[in-house]
Amino acid sequence: MKGTRLIVAIQGERGAFSHEAARRHLGEAIELLPRSTFDALFAAVASGEADRAVVPIENSLVGSIHENYDRLRALPLHIVGETQVHVRHCLIARPGATLASIRRVASHPVALAQCTRFFAERPQLEPVTAYDTAGSVMDLLRRDGPVTQAAIASKLAAQLHGGTVLLEGIQDDTENYTRFVILSREEGPLEAASKTSIVFTLADAPGALYRALAPFALRHVDLVKIESRPLRGQRWQYVFYIDVLGDPRGPAGEAVAELRQLAQEFRVLGHYPDGIRGNGDGSGAEKAS
Amino acid sequence: MKGTRLIVAIQGERGAFSHEAARRHLGEAIELLPRSTFDALFAAVASGEADRAVVPIENSLVGSIHENYDRLRALPLHIVGETQVHVRHCLIARPGATLASIRRVASHPVALAQCTRFFAERPQLEPVTAYDTAGSVMDLLRRDGPVTQAAIASKLAAQLHGGTVLLEGIQDDTENYTRFVILSREEGPLEAASKTSIVFTLADAPGALYRALAPFALRHVDLVKIESRPLRGQRWQYVFYIDVLGDPRGPAGEAVAELRQLAQEFRVLGHYPDGIRGNGDGSGAEKAS
Repeated sequence: MKGTRLIVAIQGERGAFSHEAARRHLGEAIELLPRSTFDALFAAVASGEADRAVVPIENSLVGSIHENYDRLRALPLHIVGETQVHVRHCLIARPGATLASIRRVASHPVALAQCTRFFAERPQLEPVTAYDTAGSVMDLLRRDGPVTQAAIASKLAAQLHGGTVLLEGIQDDTENYTRFVILSREEGPLEAASKTSIVFTLADAPGALYRALAPFALRHVDLVKIESRPLRGQRWQYVFYIDVLGDPRGPAGEAVAELRQLAQEFRVLGHYPDGIRGNGDGSGAEKAS
Repeated sequence: MKGTRLIVAIQGERGAFSHEAARRHLGEAIELLPRSTFDALFAAVASGEADRAVVPIENSLVGSIHENYDRLRALPLHIVGETQVHVRHCLIARPGATLASIRRVASHPVALAQCTRFFAERPQLEPVTAYDTAGSVMDLLRRDGPVTQAAIASKLAAQLHGGTVLLEGIQDDTENYTRFVILSREEGPLEAASKTSIVFTLADAPGALYRALAPFALRHVDLVKIESRPLRGQRWQYVFYIDVLGDPRGPAGEAVAELRQLAQEFRVLGHYPDGIRGNGDGSGAEKAS
């Protein structure tokens, strides 16, 4: 990829938290491809239009973004990395606006819901639903509207679009982190990997899940995530997603191979450097040149 | 409860799928207490205003309704039963309307999303978002509007509010089932129970989940559901919910007692008759007199 810039697709506009995740993991020298929906995001990398997709997969308050787990299973893409972003919401207005002048505050419904205390303490402010956090900043600055309008989005969105940050960190809960996975059409290098993500199904029998976890427990291999999703067409049957910690060339890889024998459907979604515990700050290993 | 009617709270209006679940499990001789939000639904039974709450907990296509798992953990209520409802969406209009006259179709966004094929085949119909399936039928019949309006809801909603069913079963997927739990302030009788729901947390150590499942696997006790949710304030740590099959006075109960020793946080959410596999049709054991 020397000389050419990595094309990185995200869901949302420039300055979205996904953009922050993309920069954190791949550096600033990327070409961003904003997409309006998650389906379009996955399609962008599957079709070759983008080199990578940066996909939110779970939030420390809200939990897993299940639809994206379903999409991971449906498409033959590979997880090649992960990162986490500390979600800090800012109140952003047009240059010249002051906090006292604001009456209406637009943002994505999830962002509005994460700032309930902010609104409860300021009954003069009316929350307005928008399609995207960063998009609500773009809308704000695009028109020559009054200075009574503001938006809730990341600091990056304010910087990129020329908005003024009136308040920082207005979310209810400071422990608000989103975990993102980085998708590619090709597998990541085995040597650099310290985490493996797997999707599988099991026979409907007592102890099936217990036996599926045995290969990991007996080798002291750590599972850091387990997720279940409904199996379409088989009522109250489930597909499991697990994240396994450890070098895939060692005991972790042996345990995965053993699970493959026990499972019905089975696929490794990817092996990649741990971006959550490995280096603490969640910054990525794969910087674009 | 002889002589007095059981007061049963649901989220949504009369004729909502929750109403169908309430009737299926508790019979028709109940006094229904419609509530507009899930918080109000849980509060109705916690406060004593209602005797039971009927709560949707998972759907065979969409998966778990996670916010309701969180509410189960937060409040000291007991699951005393469960039932399932086959979600069959109907196109409902005012008496006198015909399919050819309809232009706008209102319903809850989830119901609209489950009828994408219906709309794709009929481009003349505009989907309109409403707060509730049965509520959109009530709105339709309340005003003297034109016969160009319709709603998507259950057949029961049409019957209760005097709407005409123009089409039945317009959902994309026929295997669309929702599972409901029935909540009470008091525990259900142990003698009648064949299922136990538990919530617990574990130490963050390799093999912790494997060891937690061992008491069940070694006794051939079947786990029919496992669900994980984020633990607030402890980033990337989880709380687990499991459903255990079997008489709580036998091996299933022994396994639960053993898990209690291994877990950190631990609570039995309830023991109740299996309403999914036990009697096939999902009809309940607790009929109101």
